[in-house]
Amino acid sequence: MTAVDPERGPAAFRRPDEILAALALPTRGEVFSLAVPRFTDMPLFGAHPPFRVSMARTPGGLRAEGAQPWGPRNGVGYGYMAELLSATSHSGAHVDALAHVTIGDDDHWYGGGNPREHLGDSGPRHGDASKLPPFVSRGVLLDVPGFRGVDALPRSSVVDADEMAAVAAHQGVDVRAGDVVLIRTGYLGHWPDTEAMTRHATAGPDLSAARWLLERGVVAAGSDTETFEVQPPPDYGDPANPQPVHSLLLIEHAIYLFESIYLEELARAGAYEFLFVALPLKIHGATGSMLDPVAIV
Amino acid sequence: MTAVDPERGPAAFRRPDEILAALALPTRGEVFSLAVPRFTDMPLFGAHPPFRVSMARTPGGLRAEGAQPWGPRNGVGYGYMAELLSATSHSGAHVDALAHVTIGDDDHWYGGGNPREHLGDSGPRHGDASKLPPFVSRGVLLDVPGFRGVDALPRSSVVDADEMAAVAAHQGVDVRAGDVVLIRTGYLGHWPDTEAMTRHATAGPDLSAARWLLERGVVAAGSDTETFEVQPPPDYGDPANPQPVHSLLLIEHAIYLFESIYLEELARAGAYEFLFVALPLKIHGATGSMLDPVAIV
Amino acid sequence: MTAVDPERGPAAFRRPDEILAALALPTRGEVFSLAVPRFTDMPLFGAHPPFRVSMARTPGGLRAEGAQPWGPRNGVGYGYMAELLSATSHSGAHVDALAHVTIGDDDHWYGGGNPREHLGDSGPRHGDASKLPPFVSRGVLLDVPGFRGVDALPRSSVVDADEMAAVAAHQGVDVRAGDVVLIRTGYLGHWPDTEAMTRHATAGPDLSAARWLLERGVVAAGSDTETFEVQPPPDYGDPANPQPVHSLLLIEHAIYLFESIYLEELARAGAYEFLFVALPLKIHGATGSMLDPVAIV
Amino acid sequence: MTAVDPERGPAAFRRPDEILAALALPTRGEVFSLAVPRFTDMPLFGAHPPFRVSMARTPGGLRAEGAQPWGPRNGVGYGYMAELLSATSHSGAHVDALAHVTIGDDDHWYGGGNPREHLGDSGPRHGDASKLPPFVSRGVLLDVPGFRGVDALPRSSVVDADEMAAVAAHQGVDVRAGDVVLIRTGYLGHWPDTEAMTRHATAGPDLSAARWLLERGVVAAGSDTETFEVQPPPDYGDPANPQPVHSLLLIEHAIYLFESIYLEELARAGAYEFLFVALPLKIHGATGSMLDPVAIV
Repeated sequence: MTAVDPERGPAAFRRPDEILAALALPTRGEVFSLAVPRFTDMPLFGAHPPFRVSMARTPGGLRAEGAQPWGPRNGVGYGYMAELLSATSHSGAHVDALAHVTIGDDDHWYGGGNPREHLGDSGPRHGDASKLPPFVSRGVLLDVPGFRGVDALPRSSVVDADEMAAVAAHQGVDVRAGDVVLIRTGYLGHWPDTEAMTRHATAGPDLSAARWLLERGVVAAGSDTETFEVQPPPDYGDPANPQPVHSLLLIEHAIYLFESIYLEELARAGAYEFLFVALPLKIHGATGSMLDPVAIV
Repeated sequence: MTAVDPERGPAAFRRPDEILAALALPTRGEVFSLAVPRFTDMPLFGAHPPFRVSMARTPGGLRAEGAQPWGPRNGVGYGYMAELLSATSHSGAHVDALAHVTIGDDDHWYGGGNPREHLGDSGPRHGDASKLPPFVSRGVLLDVPGFRGVDALPRSSVVDADEMAAVAAHQGVDVRAGDVVLIRTGYLGHWPDTEAMTRHATAGPDLSAARWLLERGVVAAGSDTETFEVQPPPDYGDPANPQPVHSLLLIEHAIYLFESIYLEELARAGAYEFLFVALPLKIHGATGSMLDPVAIV
Repeated sequence: MTAVDPERGPAAFRRPDEILAALALPTRGEVFSLAVPRFTDMPLFGAHPPFRVSMARTPGGLRAEGAQPWGPRNGVGYGYMAELLSATSHSGAHVDALAHVTIGDDDHWYGGGNPREHLGDSGPRHGDASKLPPFVSRGVLLDVPGFRGVDALPRSSVVDADEMAAVAAHQGVDVRAGDVVLIRTGYLGHWPDTEAMTRHATAGPDLSAARWLLERGVVAAGSDTETFEVQPPPDYGDPANPQPVHSLLLIEHAIYLFESIYLEELARAGAYEFLFVALPLKIHGATGSMLDPVAIV
Repeated sequence: MTAVDPERGPAAFRRPDEILAALALPTRGEVFSLAVPRFTDMPLFGAHPPFRVSMARTPGGLRAEGAQPWGPRNGVGYGYMAELLSATSHSGAHVDALAHVTIGDDDHWYGGGNPREHLGDSGPRHGDASKLPPFVSRGVLLDVPGFRGVDALPRSSVVDADEMAAVAAHQGVDVRAGDVVLIRTGYLGHWPDTEAMTRHATAGPDLSAARWLLERGVVAAGSDTETFEVQPPPDYGDPANPQPVHSLLLIEHAIYLFESIYLEELARAGAYEFLFVALPLKIHGATGSMLDPVAIV
């Protein structure tokens, strides 16, 4: 379970028997997508550049330019379309790379990466998305609004360790070493209604809940919120840390964090244990990866 | 097996028993990544816009601007990095959406999509990447250079139906309905040496090989080349069609095509049958999806 | 004065004596900038993509990458910064190219350009910004709020031909053939306070005012608003035309239109007649050009 | 002549009588454009991101999306086109901002700007392009290949102080305080033939020529090359400085530098003295500005 590679977390070191055990979990053959479709100018965490699709190539454009990508022999009007995407990896469902959040006078991240030595103009060169592993694991859903009997958690509502344990017990599932645990707040049930989403934004786990996950040996955790932790934190600590959960899990322990994961259908189906597969894009210099994970039951 | 949805191919309609059968294939628990990492200004098919990562947010930039994304309480120097990616979905390993290649006076694609009705400024709105399914299937590798006893196929070398059958027989695997068949030419064994790659570019299946795949009922096919078919085609037909394989499989039958799939390690391991998983990003208006598929044996 | 080039308007055909006469206008040697500085995420007409500056090259990034743009001999820590701009030409002060607005079943613009024949994937290839002339002309300011005795015109307030004439008479200036006439509404006096700007948005000239300009032989006109005409138009005509002023001046007569021109200081100085210089960027495929014109008195 | 503003050079402080004197120079009323049109994927200094124009809005795209930018009343098929530009300010004819080149352990630029204090994620906030002045000055062309009797200077050919003086004397012009001096090497006479351009690349002034300009009190200088100085420098100095001319003029004295200025037609016309006008785009965070200057004779 221990990560010995300073650029990769424990999720990168799953044993073959763990992979096979995860693949053996499904009994129904049903596949749930854990991502909603992305679209131009979709709602994003405020500080991120906008998500945009524009056209790079169109049949009409090729023709107006007299372009012949396949040479002059084309009697059937064969053409193509290609788009240009402009986006951060933190757009919609995604996983944070280790090189996403930083701390300290040297702005370091997990494994000792820091801007002075490792931040090029095409992105971080240590612990970046090119080092992200594929995720093939047992997944567990903790449906907090289901446990509380509400539609979605109110804005900034805290989920602590005791509640994590209580939700798991209520659902009849345990959390084990090697798991990926997904925490539902109900936030994405209102997607993409930004006004309604604002009423339910940034609920999530506090530092005690993060420790509870760490003690159980999870290799990654996720939520349906834009940031995997309750904001503002109920206890900043001293000196004040605005994101103590990210600091503990991602910076100190390389526990990968999934965000904006769509859990509504999974919760409706009561699917609390499943095969979880997420396949990040390996991109040098990216600080995470968009992905469309699946849960298979 | 028949696609009844004009915006989706047969791969979107796998039965639960097929999913479970695919998941049951692995016996060793070994995971192969089928994508090489992407990087700024990586080699691309000439007509595509460049692949670029640049920084949108850095700890130093936040500080110089006096930005406080989490409010004023931050005594630990907490910061973050986020990049901006600019790329087409056809960068590195990817799958083509149905709305990628077009034909005819109306520039239509599979299912009747056409620019006049369906091409907005943020991309096609019919058969686009937002409709791409997750792929969880039996995968089969056809290692053509392995069969021929060469390192990589020479430039523009044709793989026809007879050779497809011969490779499969030589490897002792059959191709079945519902499969994803991956054809290795050895091209990516030279990645990213563009000079060497040029000597081995655009080998691949011809129209007879495409028909062979279609007759067997595959739901998707792929290769390690930038375009899934030999170029130029040995027979353009009349009227001349520069990409008869794309036309048959993608435009006429909605058989999804994977390109730039990394197959070197899989071939070295002699892994000809495996669980294939690829999880496209659902993006409105995109004409395909970058993805990092895995083969699990 | 008549434009004979289908890709250029009359402003491109100024006679040498007109140039010299314009240069002879200033008597004080004072230069007014007619553009406010642009910045990332600045307010824009809603449908435009955001204006963004990001860093492409930094001294720290060069160092972290070990890049040596000038070779290994560098004992003084010489480095450089370069940014990447992403923007439309319609961001802040700009001039519309002829290939900006379109009309009719064939979506044509001035001179017969149309998408079917002339719109490539890198933009229009007829009447685009590469054909924009430099502007060195007599300029005239018509300060409508100054005439009305208000700070700024209310939202959607109409300026008609009679008021244009009255403002000119009140100011003691005439409008002549070859002039560039700039109409102040006061809108940019509230820049960049979007709430206040909304209260004063889209006032401006109606069709009668446009005809008044045309009759006087101006070669270009401008305003401090995002679109050079009152919106909605007081008279759509039949069939309804949502922008009859653009249609008359830009599509029918190739009279170039300047928008988002900053006129506050010029108005405060009472400078109603001046040397106007604007130097568009010649860019193939662009539909206009950002520019920072000057008025010299 | 001395700049007292740490964010602006002496060109920003021209006296009214100097402006009027410059405007009085033209006698023929002829306007020369000093920039060649830019286009997608145009040749650029290697390290810069590519220059790209793509479409953001088209009449067909608006229609396919059912977009109604002006509301539902539109019986004339009124539409519009807008492009998206992606480029650095150092694309084609441009002026460097003070915040372009850096030196020393603190990577400072003119006026004390440095990345630690002044480099935000949207670019430098000190001495950036938002502080660039309009240029309305006497301009002088020094036609070095004309003096030498060649088509264009050979690659890396040095122009020193003695030759600068000799060219000026040969042409019968003097260089005065407040001037903008433009040095022709003939490089852009081969635009855009990259092979021919390579044979004539990076000729230009050495440190002695830069000192000669400084002693005469010029406020800006320019050339038709991509970088305003001979590369590699004939004398790196000790410690080695790969760009001693930029260091002296831009970093130490805030003498603005124009690059990629098109001087072929001006030289053919024998126009050695003229009114020079260049109007930079004021953009926060940009490190220079594309511009299309004019020379008026």
